[in-house]
Amino acid sequence: MFQRLSEFYDWYVEHLAAHSYEVTRTRLDRLAGWAVEPDTGNIRHDSGKFFSVQGLGVRTDHGPVEQWTQPIIDQPESGILGILVKRFHGTPHFLMQAKMEPGNINIVQLSPTVQATRSNYRRVHRGRSTPYLEYFTERGRGRVLSDVLQSEQGSWFLHKRNRNMIIEVTGDVPVLPGFCWLTREQLGELLRVDNLVNMDSRTVLAGYPITEIADTRRDDGPVDELFAAITGPTAERAPTRRESAALLSWFTEMKARYELVRWPLPLSAVTGWTSTPEEISHPSGRFFAVIGVDVKAETREVGSWSQPILVPRHRGVVAFLVKWIGGRPHLLARAHTQAGTQDVIELAPTVQCSPDNYTGSLAEHRPAYLDDVLGAEPSRVRFDSVHSEEGGRFYHAENRYLIVEVDGDFADEPAADFTWITAAQLADLARFGNYVNVEARNLLACLLFTDRTVAGTPLPAPVGTTAH
Amino acid sequence: MFQRLSEFYDWYVEHLAAHSYEVTRTRLDRLAGWAVEPDTGNIRHDSGKFFSVQGLGVRTDHGPVEQWTQPIIDQPESGILGILVKRFHGTPHFLMQAKMEPGNINIVQLSPTVQATRSNYRRVHRGRSTPYLEYFTERGRGRVLSDVLQSEQGSWFLHKRNRNMIIEVTGDVPVLPGFCWLTREQLGELLRVDNLVNMDSRTVLAGYPITEIADTRRDDGPVDELFAAITGPTAERAPTRRESAALLSWFTEMKARYELVRWPLPLSAVTGWTSTPEEISHPSGRFFAVIGVDVKAETREVGSWSQPILVPRHRGVVAFLVKWIGGRPHLLARAHTQAGTQDVIELAPTVQCSPDNYTGSLAEHRPAYLDDVLGAEPSRVRFDSVHSEEGGRFYHAENRYLIVEVDGDFADEPAADFTWITAAQLADLARFGNYVNVEARNLLACLLFTDRTVAGTPLPAPVGTTAH
Repeated sequence: MFQRLSEFYDWYVEHLAAHSYEVTRTRLDRLAGWAVEPDTGNIRHDSGKFFSVQGLGVRTDHGPVEQWTQPIIDQPESGILGILVKRFHGTPHFLMQAKMEPGNINIVQLSPTVQATRSNYRRVHRGRSTPYLEYFTERGRGRVLSDVLQSEQGSWFLHKRNRNMIIEVTGDVPVLPGFCWLTREQLGELLRVDNLVNMDSRTVLAGYPITEIADTRRDDGPVDELFAAITGPTAERAPTRRESAALLSWFTEMKARYELVRWPLPLSAVTGWTSTPEEISHPSGRFFAVIGVDVKAETREVGSWSQPILVPRHRGVVAFLVKWIGGRPHLLARAHTQAGTQDVIELAPTVQCSPDNYTGSLAEHRPAYLDDVLGAEPSRVRFDSVHSEEGGRFYHAENRYLIVEVDGDFADEPAADFTWITAAQLADLARFGNYVNVEARNLLACLLFTDRTVAGTPLPAPVGTTAH
Repeated sequence: MFQRLSEFYDWYVEHLAAHSYEVTRTRLDRLAGWAVEPDTGNIRHDSGKFFSVQGLGVRTDHGPVEQWTQPIIDQPESGILGILVKRFHGTPHFLMQAKMEPGNINIVQLSPTVQATRSNYRRVHRGRSTPYLEYFTERGRGRVLSDVLQSEQGSWFLHKRNRNMIIEVTGDVPVLPGFCWLTREQLGELLRVDNLVNMDSRTVLAGYPITEIADTRRDDGPVDELFAAITGPTAERAPTRRESAALLSWFTEMKARYELVRWPLPLSAVTGWTSTPEEISHPSGRFFAVIGVDVKAETREVGSWSQPILVPRHRGVVAFLVKWIGGRPHLLARAHTQAGTQDVIELAPTVQCSPDNYTGSLAEHRPAYLDDVLGAEPSRVRFDSVHSEEGGRFYHAENRYLIVEVDGDFADEPAADFTWITAAQLADLARFGNYVNVEARNLLACLLFTDRTVAGTPLPAPVGTTAH
């Protein structure tokens, strides 16, 4: 346990310095253990496990583009993302792990206690066993605070999901090297630091119940009005039945209104994309590319491996607009359809896009409310940090996460496909799979773990240097 | 409104007598408007709308049979099943409709206010418009009590679902011919009558909130202990957060544990089934057949039509075992996987099967707890009625619905894949789609609308005579 965050930083830097990692770009047709299928161009692991890169055709009446094809990562197996919680002197602490992922900015980020694909924990690659896994696979090892199959990036993954779990235990938990206990307040501070708390941690933390926060909050610092209304002692702990019925009805209507049809394609049949041994990419320079990397690490289950990895072309923006309505902060949420969305729509933040994609012929499709987010006065920005998405599948995939409080003049009537909801409603829906998308869950975690509107403390040198 | 049920019966018999219906069996290759595709053997409507009969391959590690192929009804479009509620002198009344469906026992059964596929209400077949539809398609016409996309029979439908809605209104509602207002108590009595309240009504009624029942209950008759604990003034209105977290965790574990893979097949490629112009059937005499019918009706959107329809070979049994645990009745629910289940598992009743299928080579697969249900002492049977499944797709598809209270000696520890849950927990889960299957929702409706353990009043003659 750390009394001060500076102690955590010392631990983190020490951990970084003690290990070596190397990520080198390589050709897609020379990835050890992987093959480009001659017939289809699809990229698969020789074992048939892990994931593959293939093509997808999409048709939908929801959104500006009616039909398209694209490369996508197909990873049908679900893994476990689990965080252990234990109270010390009444204060819940979260067991976090310093973990390397090849695509991470800073290479090592804070990940959940357990972050393992099924192939990982069933040891398909014959690596080391996954520590603490038994807390999440054996029933009755602790109290379940959250356990739900959650979707991940719908533009890049087809039907991917992971089991997100938070288990509170009371017994002794040995702290292995590379692991540490952090409080909610400490995690909240670290969430303000760019590229430190990884996506898997953020999506799991989004499931931490508001009731737990309100019941165990330490009264040792100022809490801003917005965050106090969301997790403070007077916070709304659960939506009313009536509110919940109205929200579910809106969600059902959105789902019934739109159509989403997908069909698998050989990667070679995807139109508008180019495929070379170096990369699969879009000639417009938009969207993303798929490249290959060779990875050497000391602290992973296996010491070295190769893999394809997706590289977004631009930094994204993920933001909730927040407005006080009826004395309570409401988030402006959107019913959103993406290529990989399992069931037509999921609830998304107000804005979720890469603004640089909306140039030239796509300028007319510039998303609603994007200008409200990017043009907000600094005094209205309640949260503003850059985070990386899953470093195991995405290379330097950064999004700027923002929470922007709009003023009373902002229109109460939302645009089509949008609705105002409270944080308690969002948290309630996130207990069920395929309701709240990963971007919205990320922002929810920031809302639940944050008490103050302050700029993030930058990481001390030499952190921030990325291996080549 | 009816003061006594005998008045309802008069109305019902009058409605039956005033209209004529005729259902005649015909060859599958002579169904007007339908074609058997030469390449695949699939049966499709000429418009490409409504539904089709095709083949499906299934592989799963959940259940006794690892892989099989079967015919299945593919109906990707979802419709609306909606019931209007209005309070008269404080008592909620439900607007029900006497509606003919070709597969119904008794031909005419009580259906929801609106029961329409999207093809129906968008008038693909150019029939009459759907009355009362606007209450369900225009927001703000009333208070939403329930609105959820729910699955239907997973053994017979691939991914079929309908939007189940209950809307409470306060303004004037004209009662059209063929429609009537019934109270919860009256519907409860009618649910004890065989083959009268149709499946669409039952699944919608399952969404009626326990809070509404407890708040508006009329204190004018005895309520049995079991039903009082479920919907009476002292009933548990919603599960606790902790109970709900534990149940969701069990559900997630079941979903993560098992695999369900499907692939579409031409009907002609389904193995073990025989296809003739008269019917598609299984030579063992098990499961179901698909036949063709010509239908003439005066009171449907269109006066006559032809269609394929599925005929189950045997009557099924659908039952919950109930046990008092910790002073509250708990239902024994099962995580169940069927060919058409959208997402690996749904919550099913303790037993849901056609016992006659489990003879000969399948005897060893006889479902768990079936003997506890069928062998129960009559004094322990709290509900026992025969109901028809969707008469628009299934011909004389009957299930015996049972609620059986087991005694204190019955093992608390459930078999693998089973869990004890309260009615409040089941109702809470049913607010979300693809959690509670249609058979469990049917029994939930019986639990919510029933006050007394009594035998159903048989329908008066001439009802019970089925058109040929």
